[in-house]
Amino acid sequence: MDAEILFIGYVESEIKSIQEAPLQEFENAPTAILKIKPEFAKAAADLKAGDRIIILTWMHLSDRKELNTHPRNDPNAKLTGIFSTRSPNRPNPIGMHETEITALLPLNRIQVAMLEVLDGTPVIDIKPVL
Amino acid sequence: MDAEILFIGYVESEIKSIQEAPLQEFENAPTAILKIKPEFAKAAADLKAGDRIIILTWMHLSDRKELNTHPRNDPNAKLTGIFSTRSPNRPNPIGMHETEITALLPLNRIQVAMLEVLDGTPVIDIKPVL
Repeated sequence: MDAEILFIGYVESEIKSIQEAPLQEFENAPTAILKIKPEFAKAAADLKAGDRIIILTWMHLSDRKELNTHPRNDPNAKLTGIFSTRSPNRPNPIGMHETEITALLPLNRIQVAMLEVLDGTPVIDIKPVL
Repeated sequence: MDAEILFIGYVESEIKSIQEAPLQEFENAPTAILKIKPEFAKAAADLKAGDRIIILTWMHLSDRKELNTHPRNDPNAKLTGIFSTRSPNRPNPIGMHETEITALLPLNRIQVAMLEVLDGTPVIDIKPVL
């Protein structure tokens, strides 16, 4: 084993299946909530509405064995090495999402603008946009 | 255990200690090499010189227990929740670095422009800049 990822929380979203997920952020992604685990609440204590953030997620339904793919699920697209694509199927299925905090809610919940992530997806990091 | 990270390769850099590392990319970071493990070479097969990429690293020397910090190691700065900072000390010490491929070298080595990463740091993902 190389290293262990900790889940710091989970995404709550109206996107309940991969079929409902837009392929890119700008294609009508809905608002969503990050539910932070109590043991990581202190790390989130200075986040506030209006902050631009990058959310890293763990795309838990991905196929980690896939090393190349047809981009955007287009069978006519050239078979392409995974590291030249944003496919969720990759050795470490880390999703990277830039968005904005729209509200802080009770119980360590953070509401964010457009987020293209399945309901129940683990959150692994939050970073400020520089 | 929540999930396992796989190391897809390692950084080769002239930065041999944290003391030598610039705090941000634009502060004179040197060129570096990503040495991809043979079992992940297929995933890197379509990368080429001139590609703008985001490299995710696993900052293996970080303190994963730290939940707040004084930004930029300034003791006078307000103690701040880690998710509002880019501190390497965080629950999942994932580094995010935007740079450009400058050359492909033999033996699955990828040369990149400015990279603020310690020699020997594991690489966990490579994504194209959109």
